[in-house]
Amino acid sequence: MPRDSSLTPLRQYGEFGLIDALRRILGEPSGDELLTGISDDAAVYRIEGDRVHVITTDMLVEGVHFDRLVMPMEYLGSKAIAVNVSDIAAMNAEPRYATIGLGLPENVFVEQIEEFYQGVRKACDLYGVQVVGGDTTAAARLTVSVTIVGEAAASRIVHRRGAVPGDLLCTTGELGGAYAGLRVLLEQRRELQEKGEDFAPDIDKYRYVIQRQLVPRARLDVVRDWAARGVRPHALIDLSDGIGSDLRHICLASGCGAELHLDALTIAPETYAVAEELGEDVGALALFGGEDYELLFAASHEEVGHMDSETCHVIGRCTTGTDVMVRMPNGELLPLERGGYEHFGAGNTS
Amino acid sequence: MPRDSSLTPLRQYGEFGLIDALRRILGEPSGDELLTGISDDAAVYRIEGDRVHVITTDMLVEGVHFDRLVMPMEYLGSKAIAVNVSDIAAMNAEPRYATIGLGLPENVFVEQIEEFYQGVRKACDLYGVQVVGGDTTAAARLTVSVTIVGEAAASRIVHRRGAVPGDLLCTTGELGGAYAGLRVLLEQRRELQEKGEDFAPDIDKYRYVIQRQLVPRARLDVVRDWAARGVRPHALIDLSDGIGSDLRHICLASGCGAELHLDALTIAPETYAVAEELGEDVGALALFGGEDYELLFAASHEEVGHMDSETCHVIGRCTTGTDVMVRMPNGELLPLERGGYEHFGAGNTS
Repeated sequence: MPRDSSLTPLRQYGEFGLIDALRRILGEPSGDELLTGISDDAAVYRIEGDRVHVITTDMLVEGVHFDRLVMPMEYLGSKAIAVNVSDIAAMNAEPRYATIGLGLPENVFVEQIEEFYQGVRKACDLYGVQVVGGDTTAAARLTVSVTIVGEAAASRIVHRRGAVPGDLLCTTGELGGAYAGLRVLLEQRRELQEKGEDFAPDIDKYRYVIQRQLVPRARLDVVRDWAARGVRPHALIDLSDGIGSDLRHICLASGCGAELHLDALTIAPETYAVAEELGEDVGALALFGGEDYELLFAASHEEVGHMDSETCHVIGRCTTGTDVMVRMPNGELLPLERGGYEHFGAGNTS
Repeated sequence: MPRDSSLTPLRQYGEFGLIDALRRILGEPSGDELLTGISDDAAVYRIEGDRVHVITTDMLVEGVHFDRLVMPMEYLGSKAIAVNVSDIAAMNAEPRYATIGLGLPENVFVEQIEEFYQGVRKACDLYGVQVVGGDTTAAARLTVSVTIVGEAAASRIVHRRGAVPGDLLCTTGELGGAYAGLRVLLEQRRELQEKGEDFAPDIDKYRYVIQRQLVPRARLDVVRDWAARGVRPHALIDLSDGIGSDLRHICLASGCGAELHLDALTIAPETYAVAEELGEDVGALALFGGEDYELLFAASHEEVGHMDSETCHVIGRCTTGTDVMVRMPNGELLPLERGGYEHFGAGNTS
């Protein structure tokens, strides 16, 4: 393949540039039955009457999204399902069917693949998903590509684009823990490698944040609770890249700005402890850490009033304009700089 | 990762062993709405009344399924769609929606990714598919994971398992061309590498077989023709691995044997020419070459009588017992030895 100097390296484009290229070349999907194309956590197409299906796909690549040295195979199987279920939950839908493409390098053994599928099964049981198909092939690096089809009433679907100025911005669960867990695991690995020992994660110290990293939980419980209460946010996304990045998606899609309060973020005690041990700012972990797979949503005061306060933490509000700002504990208002990570960006290892 | 000698290397398992492990651990999918799980070209689930959706996924990995030196990016994009559409056609269904996961190494340039999507678009236009979602990520090797959702009336779906003794065995199109094309391309590359020149396929010589390799055509036209004529075979599969392997799937699933006539295989003149130039047996190319993406089906004499003779070539019949045999031109009856290729098998490069 000639490395012609007239060609553009990928890093000049970034992941979102690629998605734009894809949209430009393929055209926005259209037709009566396709309700949402490549612009949200999942695509939406009509099945019959008020029923729709949603579909999402995520590819996890060894050395990019996970390090097998700190990610036991069973957890990898569970996580591959959970991150896709999270995208379905981010449409306010229920997951139904999954397919799994698995690219296997020669240094993966049969017993490890069985552990992987055990993890898949546990997550599928947890979320009510059936694996209906797949493909296995040789590959240079362990690669997991999961596609999940979900279902909802059309009237229950929530997009990224529905936020309006004045809406409250809310999150479920705790933030920054998954990234804190990753840092702990990488530190453990470094120490063991220096001693020349095989790595097995010591999950007893910092058990909570390690669990947040290895076995993230898709917040389908919240989606089901909203359905039971008959409430629905205006806009919804899951926190895969961190609020710093994902809140921007809601604001861009909705044509609004946002102001959030750093003090209002829900952060677990163990995440504070890890941040202190690492000498890191815990707010940065919570804003830009990524992989928490909690939900971020915009809802009216009235809707929030009908939600469960245990899984609805108000962290700010939607504003007019397009600025996305964070109110610091000292009262200062700063732009929420693009953080989290992009896979073609600054080379974050996670 | 400790290479514990108690662990089982993948090559002792093979691709079908892995599928069995997956079924054993995940359990056969069940439920009123899931009609077919991990046992056919695609899974089938009920949408409403007599309408079903089918879903299939295929992962193409550089160095395993394709060599970028002989596979221009646009063709790769078209082929990634076509091979999945072929699995949908092999259920006698119509493709509707696609998602594309793309793992990109650093030596892929933006312009090449655009060429890839141009190829995707052409194939999607050809088959009536809409790309509704995707995921792009960094990867060590170029990896393409496509999932396609298709649709049919439940009564139109055809499985691998419906063949009965006495059925005629038929194929569409011409066999062995795709593998002949691969051999020509690899030979061209070798010659150019010896001269130190960059490779660009010379498609003018052996244009037909090269096209069979680079731009396979899913036989959706045949599926539509059957629907228009109101006919339907008893059992159906697409020829991805070669008759030698794919006919066994029909026989195993249906509990029958087969006898086919080598002389009855439809082989293009250019495939004969390439086989002669390579000093290879043209029958072996047609039986074990793979990647032709024609359809192989079992149907009653009456059904065959209602099909278009241009796309229905009788090559043998289903028998009682379980033997899968091939009648040679000299009248000898030989077991059809397992051929084609398995990705974890004999190390075939295609």
